[in-house]
Amino acid sequence: MNETDFIAALRKLPLHDGARGLDDDCAVLELGSETLILTTDSMAAGTHFRSDADPFDIAWKLVATNLSDLAAKGAEPVGVLLNYSLSDKDARFLEGLAAILQEYDVPILGGDSITSNGKPTHSLTAIGRATCAPVPHRGGAEAGDAIYVTGTLGRAMLGFEGAAEHLDAFNLPRPRLAQGRALASHVSAMMDISDGLLLDCWRMASASGLAFALESGSIPVAADDRLDECIRWGDDYELLFTAPASASLPADATMIGTVQPADAAPLRLDREEISCVDGLGYQHK
Amino acid sequence: MNETDFIAALRKLPLHDGARGLDDDCAVLELGSETLILTTDSMAAGTHFRSDADPFDIAWKLVATNLSDLAAKGAEPVGVLLNYSLSDKDARFLEGLAAILQEYDVPILGGDSITSNGKPTHSLTAIGRATCAPVPHRGGAEAGDAIYVTGTLGRAMLGFEGAAEHLDAFNLPRPRLAQGRALASHVSAMMDISDGLLLDCWRMASASGLAFALESGSIPVAADDRLDECIRWGDDYELLFTAPASASLPADATMIGTVQPADAAPLRLDREEISCVDGLGYQHK
Repeated sequence: MNETDFIAALRKLPLHDGARGLDDDCAVLELGSETLILTTDSMAAGTHFRSDADPFDIAWKLVATNLSDLAAKGAEPVGVLLNYSLSDKDARFLEGLAAILQEYDVPILGGDSITSNGKPTHSLTAIGRATCAPVPHRGGAEAGDAIYVTGTLGRAMLGFEGAAEHLDAFNLPRPRLAQGRALASHVSAMMDISDGLLLDCWRMASASGLAFALESGSIPVAADDRLDECIRWGDDYELLFTAPASASLPADATMIGTVQPADAAPLRLDREEISCVDGLGYQHK
Repeated sequence: MNETDFIAALRKLPLHDGARGLDDDCAVLELGSETLILTTDSMAAGTHFRSDADPFDIAWKLVATNLSDLAAKGAEPVGVLLNYSLSDKDARFLEGLAAILQEYDVPILGGDSITSNGKPTHSLTAIGRATCAPVPHRGGAEAGDAIYVTGTLGRAMLGFEGAAEHLDAFNLPRPRLAQGRALASHVSAMMDISDGLLLDCWRMASASGLAFALESGSIPVAADDRLDECIRWGDDYELLFTAPASASLPADATMIGTVQPADAAPLRLDREEISCVDGLGYQHK
């Protein structure tokens, strides 16, 4: 099966209400007066990182991608559980793990380390506490809202290609936790941009049952002459969100378009309707 | 590093109070009026299951081992998050997953599935809700308590060897969730026996700072002529617990010894002091 088929099969099993139909990046677990946000991601050698990648960066990215999911919910991290395949690179992995956990003040809750004789696979489960209700999700955009993005897109792509000033954007991405918490009560929908702006806009528009109209000239990109790539490449981990155009936002973000009533296509870039999801970004096989 | 060294290194990083110093099988997270129990386990092809193992059994065991950790805390399962490496055996894995989730009425909260070009590694994180306070742990045994075990030990070993009537004990272990919940408020210490009775008695005695005196003739084993192996082999997932000798217990269990004041050795089997942990059970390298 590919990932899409597998998730479709999982949806036929008993799901917790908080799983939100497996349509979101996080589960939302209400417990008395608290709401927990749960997310988990796996990374495998050869698929998600090169076998010669610096284990410091692997640890950082494993934690950062999960914290980025919490950021998109406006959640405050509570702790993480680590599933780790032991190798000869453990000391360096631990350095990266220590660095990001200290940077974002996130403690370890538990985990499991195993001996594996194959390529290492690591997983991390991050648990956060919601800071506002309702918790933002992908499907809350409303017609007339403005569409925003934090930061500059394409930096991870340029870092991947070796551009010195963007290396950290690819190797050591910074989850937008502070911005997510500040924005959460102001947004109608929010998600992180892990798979490319266009694809994630498509997903948010589809989940909201509306159409997103983007203005390419407004989109902040790291290389103006490579706009098409910057808005399709993933790994930037900026926040994509919608909010009433009149909202006064407590975090820096750039307006890149507006939410329109449902249309033939869920996405329009300048005047061009985009009616096929293929080629918009990184799609999990 | 081996697993012991890795956990020692993790202990130097910031730990959540609920991680209990990484000395227990679960984290205990207090949230307002609720207490959550968190546990996670990984299984890799070639290490934890044979590459030709039935994927139905792999899924069952992955969930069962985590639910067994919840059982030892007297917790009621809330849901699970699955980290899954896709392969050509996904449909059969999903059948096993469905079977155990339905059997124990546990819903899916979320997860991540990945493409990996190595041997598959799967992880599961189980979340439960504590049903009593304090939550049982390994270190609560008191001198004078009786030591108990549920079920019969050695069945997983015999099933692994091919004995027809014990196959399910190895392939489809049954977490003692109902017994754990019934016992939790009666016990002074509790854990599941995943690595062999003697080793887990050693651990519980050490964590409690006391000595466990076991009577071999009292220990319920599946093969009387192979007692030594039955009490050293793991994978039985029965519950080991201590309770005042006068306690009236709400679940079937066999008294196998008594808790003694601290002694030179943490464990005694009949009259023999066991002062070295080597060879007592399955130790993670």
